[in-house]
Amino acid sequence: MKKVWLNCHIATMKHGTYSIIKDGSIITKNECIDWIGPRNEMPCLDIGKYETYDLDGAWVTPGLIDCHTHGVFGGNRSGEFEARLKGVSYAEIAQQGGGISSTVRATREASESDLFQSAKKRVQSLLKEGVTTIEIKSGYGLDLENERKMLKVIRQLADELPMTIRSTCLAAHALPPEFKNNADGYIDYICQKILPQLHQEHLIDAVDAFCEHLAFSPQQVEKVFQTAKSLNLPVKLHAEQLSALGGSSLAARYHALSADHLEFMTDQDILAMADADTVAVLLPGAFYFLRETQYPPVEKLIQQGVKIALSTDLNPGTSPVLSLRLMMNMGCTLFRLTPEQALAAVTIHAAQALDLAHRHGSLDIGKCADFVAWDIDHPSELSYWLGGDLNKKIIQKGQLLHL
Amino acid sequence: MKKVWLNCHIATMKHGTYSIIKDGSIITKNECIDWIGPRNEMPCLDIGKYETYDLDGAWVTPGLIDCHTHGVFGGNRSGEFEARLKGVSYAEIAQQGGGISSTVRATREASESDLFQSAKKRVQSLLKEGVTTIEIKSGYGLDLENERKMLKVIRQLADELPMTIRSTCLAAHALPPEFKNNADGYIDYICQKILPQLHQEHLIDAVDAFCEHLAFSPQQVEKVFQTAKSLNLPVKLHAEQLSALGGSSLAARYHALSADHLEFMTDQDILAMADADTVAVLLPGAFYFLRETQYPPVEKLIQQGVKIALSTDLNPGTSPVLSLRLMMNMGCTLFRLTPEQALAAVTIHAAQALDLAHRHGSLDIGKCADFVAWDIDHPSELSYWLGGDLNKKIIQKGQLLHL
Ligand SMILES: [Zn+2]
Ligand SMILES: [Zn+2]
Repeated sequence: MKKVWLNCHIATMKHGTYSIIKDGSIITKNECIDWIGPRNEMPCLDIGKYETYDLDGAWVTPGLIDCHTHGVFGGNRSGEFEARLKGVSYAEIAQQGGGISSTVRATREASESDLFQSAKKRVQSLLKEGVTTIEIKSGYGLDLENERKMLKVIRQLADELPMTIRSTCLAAHALPPEFKNNADGYIDYICQKILPQLHQEHLIDAVDAFCEHLAFSPQQVEKVFQTAKSLNLPVKLHAEQLSALGGSSLAARYHALSADHLEFMTDQDILAMADADTVAVLLPGAFYFLRETQYPPVEKLIQQGVKIALSTDLNPGTSPVLSLRLMMNMGCTLFRLTPEQALAAVTIHAAQALDLAHRHGSLDIGKCADFVAWDIDHPSELSYWLGGDLNKKIIQKGQLLHL
Repeated sequence: MKKVWLNCHIATMKHGTYSIIKDGSIITKNECIDWIGPRNEMPCLDIGKYETYDLDGAWVTPGLIDCHTHGVFGGNRSGEFEARLKGVSYAEIAQQGGGISSTVRATREASESDLFQSAKKRVQSLLKEGVTTIEIKSGYGLDLENERKMLKVIRQLADELPMTIRSTCLAAHALPPEFKNNADGYIDYICQKILPQLHQEHLIDAVDAFCEHLAFSPQQVEKVFQTAKSLNLPVKLHAEQLSALGGSSLAARYHALSADHLEFMTDQDILAMADADTVAVLLPGAFYFLRETQYPPVEKLIQQGVKIALSTDLNPGTSPVLSLRLMMNMGCTLFRLTPEQALAAVTIHAAQALDLAHRHGSLDIGKCADFVAWDIDHPSELSYWLGGDLNKKIIQKGQLLHL
């Protein structure tokens, strides 16, 4: 069914820039954009026959895309947050079973339905903010059964929420207690058991790993990537967050969709990513929350033509972030992106990081009719305001959502 | 009329600590709290006769209090934000009429009704987050007519929104063009004309000034304070944000309700404020947005018993912040408050900064029935999560709000 959306200005985000249409309108047909352009060029159609929406001078952007989240987990780590601020040391917290292992424990103990309910609230927070596409990773199960449970929750969220949801298997997130001092053994288990089995169950859209001294080495990550390739699954990587291991170059060599974090990447990594057109996903929430001081090389990335995405990294330990717009502001304030670059970073570039740029991330004929109408005077306001709901209307697959 | 609020845990915030009641309930009578305590100590009453609300295991806190905002203004400065990130210098922006003078211009040009509409949206954003009491300053009018216009908008907001709203006259915010190179002349105009007149019109609850090299000297501020005292109006002060001028000591000498910002305060200022029981209002949003590196002396303030409040400083130039909960997180992450201190900082201490602690800011018999029921497992989560709406219920003066 056709619908006409009148009386708006549009930042289409084609080519990664605002690409503005002033006084525009949009015609949607079922889930897609049938026509988009200046109002005075709109094809004559008998408007009375279509559902017509007056957007009241709003600014329209593509629906926002959060391309890196760990949105499914048991418990939360607010107690740890409070303990740290009261002066308890990291070592003491680890000794008391805190840190990521506490989230693994809570996630394993939680039922599928508990995980679904808590994740749904978090993902709905993002949806209400204008996020219409989200990626969610597993990685707190760390065995076949519990990774499956997490991935099934992600599929269930996709069934029940009006969003496009991509699932990423991050079994190579941390070492489970069963494989203590045996990272190679765990990597073999991932490659021989977890990935093939869960791929067969159609639970995996992409494969991710955590390449860091406290997680897995480039050699171990490469085994995971080889398995992913053999299964025809795209890869991405947590790389260069705390040290320079060359993970982002490795990711580029495997034509990864994205390499994420990147604070410690080298010039050589940048060139490799530019060559492979691998998206740089920056995560200012974790940078802020951990009070990091090493900045990702934003200027050099842009100079070399690497596309930059921004994401919440929503997770209980290092980025309890439920607002993608806040990441746009932090991308500007902390990482010195412009508001235009920040908007590209949560639309068209984020779409590419999920291999969805053919359907999502910009507004054009034939693309998915996911867009947000914001009560603002210029799209730079999306990065400028911290918080606030900006009185938006959210349209997903051509449907006005009532949230 | 009496209402019973059952099935909750309560952080009453008495004495500036959580002061938790587990398995609590609250009885409200009209606008006030009639009884509060553990459920099993609740007086026997014929519950069938009262409206009863099941809070479903939620955590209840006092309604949040945002004690320092510039929420009424014309235009916004997102264009300037974008220009700066594109590399335009402060000097060029100032030359093009940017900075605070652009907000003064836009505010003077705006009608009272325009100002009301734009401010209402911003204040509603805060209300929806759980803010039931807010202070709003004038200070972009800078002449009798336009300061009056701003203060009338603040009174109108108080009439139309279900919140307690305090108005502060900040005529001594910046030098208006009419008094170029004549700061003393403007101060005389404030003291002889603006304050007496607008006080007579019952538009002023408190008087504020901006003590800084680029604004007004301690000597000029003291004149404003003397006038305020003669009118029986309490004072507060923007002090020590960018340099140490001793404004906070001056504020303490005048028994100011609060001194605000305080990054550059000295040990002597701290002692003076402790002595006068003047609240230290910290504004991490401006600190973050301006990428400041000089931290307010949080530890010393606490050691000396100075009460710390946190606020949004909502304003278009240096803190476009529409979320007080984000300030709680920044208070913890940037300034190293504990979540408990952060909650006190937006409840009981913020109430004291507005001279409202006898009615607001903690939950106790006889106090105003302003509270929020949050879908969380512990009050530390209020500081832990960045963004998200935490599925709250807001009760103001005993009424459940439907927002
Ligand atoms: Zn991550
Ligand atoms: Zn201020």
